[in-house]
Amino acid sequence: MDIEDLAKRVKAGERRALSRAITLVESGRADHREQAVALLEALKDGAGGAMRIGLSGTPGVGKSTFIEAFGMFLVNRGLRVAVLAVDPSSARSGGSILGDKTRMEQLSRHPDAFIRPSPSQSHLGGVARRTREAAAICEAAGFDVVLIETVGVGQSETMVAEMSDLFLLLLAPAGGDELQGVKRGIMEIADIILVNKADGDLKATATRTCADYSGALKLLRKRPQDPEGYPKAMTVSAVTQDGLEDAWEAMVALSDWRKETGHWEARRAAQARHWFNDHLRAGLLARLEEDPAIRDLVRRRGEEVEAGTISPTAAADEVLDALRGA
Amino acid sequence: MDIEDLAKRVKAGERRALSRAITLVESGRADHREQAVALLEALKDGAGGAMRIGLSGTPGVGKSTFIEAFGMFLVNRGLRVAVLAVDPSSARSGGSILGDKTRMEQLSRHPDAFIRPSPSQSHLGGVARRTREAAAICEAAGFDVVLIETVGVGQSETMVAEMSDLFLLLLAPAGGDELQGVKRGIMEIADIILVNKADGDLKATATRTCADYSGALKLLRKRPQDPEGYPKAMTVSAVTQDGLEDAWEAMVALSDWRKETGHWEARRAAQARHWFNDHLRAGLLARLEEDPAIRDLVRRRGEEVEAGTISPTAAADEVLDALRGA
Repeated sequence: MDIEDLAKRVKAGERRALSRAITLVESGRADHREQAVALLEALKDGAGGAMRIGLSGTPGVGKSTFIEAFGMFLVNRGLRVAVLAVDPSSARSGGSILGDKTRMEQLSRHPDAFIRPSPSQSHLGGVARRTREAAAICEAAGFDVVLIETVGVGQSETMVAEMSDLFLLLLAPAGGDELQGVKRGIMEIADIILVNKADGDLKATATRTCADYSGALKLLRKRPQDPEGYPKAMTVSAVTQDGLEDAWEAMVALSDWRKETGHWEARRAAQARHWFNDHLRAGLLARLEEDPAIRDLVRRRGEEVEAGTISPTAAADEVLDALRGA
Repeated sequence: MDIEDLAKRVKAGERRALSRAITLVESGRADHREQAVALLEALKDGAGGAMRIGLSGTPGVGKSTFIEAFGMFLVNRGLRVAVLAVDPSSARSGGSILGDKTRMEQLSRHPDAFIRPSPSQSHLGGVARRTREAAAICEAAGFDVVLIETVGVGQSETMVAEMSDLFLLLLAPAGGDELQGVKRGIMEIADIILVNKADGDLKATATRTCADYSGALKLLRKRPQDPEGYPKAMTVSAVTQDGLEDAWEAMVALSDWRKETGHWEARRAAQARHWFNDHLRAGLLARLEEDPAIRDLVRRRGEEVEAGTISPTAAADEVLDALRGA
């Protein structure tokens, strides 16, 4: 494969080249991996042009409908939108949220939109690393907005936040004391909470829910990367499209403020450093898997550690010694 | 050093042996490390007898006074209490919270109490690993309660939670909307929030603060390891000792419930697995530091990654290749 040519065509915005480039970084084959690294190197100058938006929301909150509505809102303003996903739960079934595409009928057919399901990898870290690379490719391909959604399994939100410039949390309206349990930790990384379904019978409930979360956000310590009034909670309706414009303006205002104050660039630099360390760590840990004898030793000692028949320290030392000898 | 003899004397509750054992695990010397591993192996049967309580609270909240009062409350009930600390901020100054001992005058002199300052290590992970090992030694030495405090710098609370059976968050009373910003993430790991200084002029404010946090806790999703009513917020006064008995009863009730339901043992097993993985990871990552040429390469490529002149993937691959060749 001519990587230089592929990079050129990605930069020119060729759709087929884009798909092919992402398929390349998603591949587990060693020779593909080498080409993927070369491709990412060739595209690295394209970084920094897009607004990368992380989006989380539990099933039932209307995430696909929201992405369809928000995506159409953006392309109708002349913006090019890529939608990626980090979904470890679909990993085993080989990227099952392809189904989302059919639920985003208009957006998936729009020439300025590009929708790509979650890569299928055996574990969350791998899924996240590949999606981070796909986002870099989309950015180099000139997309204005790269929307990265996650279903919020395990640490997936934290990982998506590490590849996003800002992070949205989509919630459904809920009444009074029955406020939905927000996953612990997620409120910390959300920049904007969007209470969806603020229409029809649910409008009043959505407004109350929004006020409740506004109150809860005030309990959290102010982060240096936030201007006055952020993180904030807002209502939206994917059906009537009420609030979409306000939400987008809040995102642009936040993004502009962070760019002016240097927080945006600092975050990008810190994220690049994070992924460098993450790749290093993953590469080192992969050595525990390469040799079957080591793999077996890790498994056996791990079970003994859980059972309390060997101390964690002694078990780790033994594996490290074996690895050095291997 | 006769490790078998040292282990025997630690188990017999000899104070000097205990101090010496902890000094051994805190040492960075390679020969000491080997002995420390042997010691921890020899003491591993003593695990599971203590209630290990993590405690976090920002400066000014009265943490030392609380530990003095709570520790005295426990020893007066015939319980043996060890106090350890994870304080990365004191690491550079070589364990500066020795000063705490003088602020815990009664407790530090009590024969059933043992206070040990934070180990001095260059980074949080090292401090945490050594403190986890010190806690295991205290448990083997027959202490009923091992209190592990942290000032809450960086990820220190999460690390302390990984070596505790339950986690307390100590807060000061605060009025109305000026509720102190609780560090993001800490509410997730707290089992019991204690609003301190519920005495004199501050009593009413403390009660209101407690109610506010009770409300905020309800916004979080219920965790499987919690019985009805947990996590909970309560008021205490280290000065009048009001609430100490209720707080202790809440800890015992939580601990008993978790033991009955199997959550306690499952958490211990998961924690042992966590520290096994942590030691493995730390040992592998240490290889990035061992060879000066590799160390220099990591530093240079890391800077380039932040500046955007090389992609994180390519930079990591280069280091991993160099390491394999080294």
